Amino acid sequence: MPDSPAAPVTSRVAFRPAVRDDLARIVELIADDAVAATRTGAFGPAHVAGFEAIAASTNDELVVAELDGEVVGTMQLTFVPGISRNGATRLLVEAVRVDARLRGRGLGRALMEHAHARGRERGCALAQLTSDKQRPEAHRFYRSLGYAQSHEGFKLPL
Amino acid sequence: MPDSPAAPVTSRVAFRPAVRDDLARIVELIADDAVAATRTGAFGPAHVAGFEAIAASTNDELVVAELDGEVVGTMQLTFVPGISRNGATRLLVEAVRVDARLRGRGLGRALMEHAHARGRERGCALAQLTSDKQRPEAHRFYRSLGYAQSHEGFKLPL
Repeated sequence: MPDSPAAPVTSRVAFRPAVRDDLARIVELIADDAVAATRTGAFGPAHVAGFEAIAASTNDELVVAELDGEVVGTMQLTFVPGISRNGATRLLVEAVRVDARLRGRGLGRALMEHAHARGRERGCALAQLTSDKQRPEAHRFYRSLGYAQSHEGFKLPL
Repeated sequence: MPDSPAAPVTSRVAFRPAVRDDLARIVELIADDAVAATRTGAFGPAHVAGFEAIAASTNDELVVAELDGEVVGTMQLTFVPGISRNGATRLLVEAVRVDARLRGRGLGRALMEHAHARGRERGCALAQLTSDKQRPEAHRFYRSLGYAQSHEGFKLPL
């Protein structure tokens, strides 16, 4: 029986570390968004440099979600050691994206569950992320995963 | 002429990487706060483990501010490579604290300026931080430094 358009796809999705050949597609996913399009830019050398810096870091992971041989989601994980909250290591989640054609089918939730599993494996006591105030639907999504919307998020260009 | 109680102290403050002997004082500073006291805990082995993990990371720095031989401020910096925002490296600032006796004398601002200078030295295009919604005075402070209060901050215990 074929999937209905709204059927979950998560049983067929695999998560793995990104490789260099995934990068153009990752940039495309990150840029496919009204909020991020202008600031992400077209795929180029700055993204390659970012990829290489992530690959060289033992505390950073770029993850892709693959479905039927195609990259359909991505996120970046950073494991941040610390003193506050009784010496907690934090899991920082950035740049979470799901292919627009697959939204509403459980992929975002599965991606975040994978993030939390990786965080626990690395001994993280806390996951944290920020989401642009222009994304109320993302805020509902994170609250539905159990996140407390407890903080204000600040950004400053350097 | 002696300083008045409200005189800036920033000309006499030095910033340096924290050493192990600073740690008990750093925990004291982090915990001296109505929001953080209960979750930071008394100085113990978990804080030592956090300190050692920061020391072992090339992307993390624990900074102290020293005045007349005493540690009077602290913050943690994390340099986060990335793909979004055109491959920007981000400066993540966590656990910013100033000795309560010295508040209002420019020390917090000097601490943040030191953070931004370190971020630029590491090639960061963006500084980011979150602040508990219970801290409106901190929000005013970050806005006064030029930060945009553009994001919602989410936390989840793992």
